[in-house]
Amino acid sequence: MKLNVAVLAGDGIGPEIVEQALKVTNAICARFGHELITKTGLVGAVAIDETGNPYPDETHQLCMDSDAVLFGAIGHPRFDNDPSAKVRPEQGLLAMRKKLGLYANIRPTITFPSLLDMSPLRRDRIEGADFVAIRELTGGIYFGQPQGRSEDGNTAYDTSIYTRQEIERILKLAFEFAMQRRKKLTIVDKANVLATSRLWRTISQEMAPKYPEVEVEYMFVDNAAMQIIQWPKRFDVMVTENMFGDILTDEASVISGSLGLLPSASMGIHTSVFEPIHGSYPQAAGKNIANPCATILSAAMMFEYAFKLQDEASLITEAVNASIEAKAVTEDLAGEGGKALGTDEVGDWIVEYIRKK
Amino acid sequence: MKLNVAVLAGDGIGPEIVEQALKVTNAICARFGHELITKTGLVGAVAIDETGNPYPDETHQLCMDSDAVLFGAIGHPRFDNDPSAKVRPEQGLLAMRKKLGLYANIRPTITFPSLLDMSPLRRDRIEGADFVAIRELTGGIYFGQPQGRSEDGNTAYDTSIYTRQEIERILKLAFEFAMQRRKKLTIVDKANVLATSRLWRTISQEMAPKYPEVEVEYMFVDNAAMQIIQWPKRFDVMVTENMFGDILTDEASVISGSLGLLPSASMGIHTSVFEPIHGSYPQAAGKNIANPCATILSAAMMFEYAFKLQDEASLITEAVNASIEAKAVTEDLAGEGGKALGTDEVGDWIVEYIRKK
Ligand SMILES: CC(C)[C@H](C(=O)O)[C@@H](O)C(=O)O
Ligand SMILES: CC(C)[C@H](C(=O)O)[C@@H](O)C(=O)O
Repeated sequence: MKLNVAVLAGDGIGPEIVEQALKVTNAICARFGHELITKTGLVGAVAIDETGNPYPDETHQLCMDSDAVLFGAIGHPRFDNDPSAKVRPEQGLLAMRKKLGLYANIRPTITFPSLLDMSPLRRDRIEGADFVAIRELTGGIYFGQPQGRSEDGNTAYDTSIYTRQEIERILKLAFEFAMQRRKKLTIVDKANVLATSRLWRTISQEMAPKYPEVEVEYMFVDNAAMQIIQWPKRFDVMVTENMFGDILTDEASVISGSLGLLPSASMGIHTSVFEPIHGSYPQAAGKNIANPCATILSAAMMFEYAFKLQDEASLITEAVNASIEAKAVTEDLAGEGGKALGTDEVGDWIVEYIRKK
Repeated sequence: MKLNVAVLAGDGIGPEIVEQALKVTNAICARFGHELITKTGLVGAVAIDETGNPYPDETHQLCMDSDAVLFGAIGHPRFDNDPSAKVRPEQGLLAMRKKLGLYANIRPTITFPSLLDMSPLRRDRIEGADFVAIRELTGGIYFGQPQGRSEDGNTAYDTSIYTRQEIERILKLAFEFAMQRRKKLTIVDKANVLATSRLWRTISQEMAPKYPEVEVEYMFVDNAAMQIIQWPKRFDVMVTENMFGDILTDEASVISGSLGLLPSASMGIHTSVFEPIHGSYPQAAGKNIANPCATILSAAMMFEYAFKLQDEASLITEAVNASIEAKAVTEDLAGEGGKALGTDEVGDWIVEYIRKK
């Protein structure tokens, strides 16, 4: 198969970790006989520096012409204490989501047997936890208009909006995920307060009979924020709107105890984007210490979701798990007294595993 | 001192737990020589049944005429699967907040030494955790207009609004709390996305120089959702807007491992309301098994915040702690094989402790 991948490394540790994911992707293509064509584009602070735009038109065109986008991370400290800066790296992320129609962010929550003790949660609460959180990514309060300030500057407002079409699209995906898994769907909202949530509930109640095997559960977002920590094993597929999803998916990411391992996929109308959930970690940039596994596992999601190549995806996941079991890990996972490999050495180890397998 | 307290027991276990808190309040008044005058009012499902209104005018008048309101819980299962029911118990809660101007919900997050193992979090992460979360309670997306649906019913919208006056009021309270404590204030927002958050940030940056001793930290809400679980000990005072506060305070309540112990105060313009953070727990109603301690500790907050009677408040807290250490607890805390007392027996134990002390 011919695989056209746009590569947006972004800022901070982005370039280093994406390089490892590309090495692994190449190894997989060599082993399974696929042709990989990559083209790189600018995004984030580095794109602001070179073009004044955090998501330049050329980058957008590149993404539109690709079968999938492999994304690193964006963000730079010089923007951090100035949320009202006119041009910001995050705007690039939001523009990319909107223009590519990346309507669903998918985050598996998984635990790694040999890393259970790194979690802030007790082992018995998390052992075997395995759920997928699906966050609506192009609607809600992120993009709703009007947004701004009154003329005197003393009142500010944001608008959350959802249309039937947006809600149906994401719920369809969520029901389909549930069908492929343990057939339990938790729909998180605040229907006791929000009109948008009530529309979500109306539509999900219309759709549920089409998936009679799926057990549907409604949960208020405040309760969900508790349940995720108290009983993470109770979830199978969880779906929610953009802002709630931002909060709950980050909350859930803590379960595994190792942020450096968590991948994500953002499914789009035009193409889909695969990226680690962690940020650009500027303090670590250029030091060859960042954990590349989240990005490598994002490449696995790319094989599974963008190319429907399940064996390829599984081999990457297996190789990453093997590297962790073999303690071929970066310093974040090495533990006290453990030997830490460099970012590139972890990449090499995983490539070797794939070659030899 | 003469203490005028409005008592709104509400639904489910509300009446049972409020009864215990009143016993304790009476014991304290007897011991310290205060005169307690209580008047009861209807609220919640029970108020809907009797008057058609979950927060009747008479109840509001009663609250306006009181120095403090002791509140149980509201909610009834018959409303649960029908979020669009015309009249709902929660509307009573929201109406009460708005009409009494309850602009700040205050929730201490504390751990109880003998209960550390009930937490889903590891002991070393939570031992000594001690922070106060302050949630803005009368603004934001809870009350913003317009809210509703388009004419064809296929688009829904909610509006989040904040004014300078609302933001200044709650931040002032938060800075003052920080001054009374470890002088660290975490302001949680989503200033990289929301206009309302940017106004919060502008105003807090204006106010901070007035409190030079307070270390101010800004944190995005998604990051806060992670930090609360990963490093709960890093917080001292946290303040945020209404919707984020709804989610984060419930998330934080899980830390202690015992929801049945957590009190809250809602500071108002006219009068303040003291209530447990847990719900009306209808399955337990009338069974004499509900834990009354969260309500009893809410009465302690009432002495501290409404009446500025610190010794009275401290004695209640001491008595509750003693009951836990003595294992004079309801079944939620008794543990396997442990003997469980009834709701009223726990109340009696605490009253006895106060009398003998
Ligand atoms: C950077 C920010 C705008 C973004 C979001 O809120 O969506 C980030 O938190 C994320 O989750 O990808
Ligand atoms: C019942 C509901 C409207 C309420 C809220 O969201 O404020 C509750 O969750 C709370 O936190 O008191």
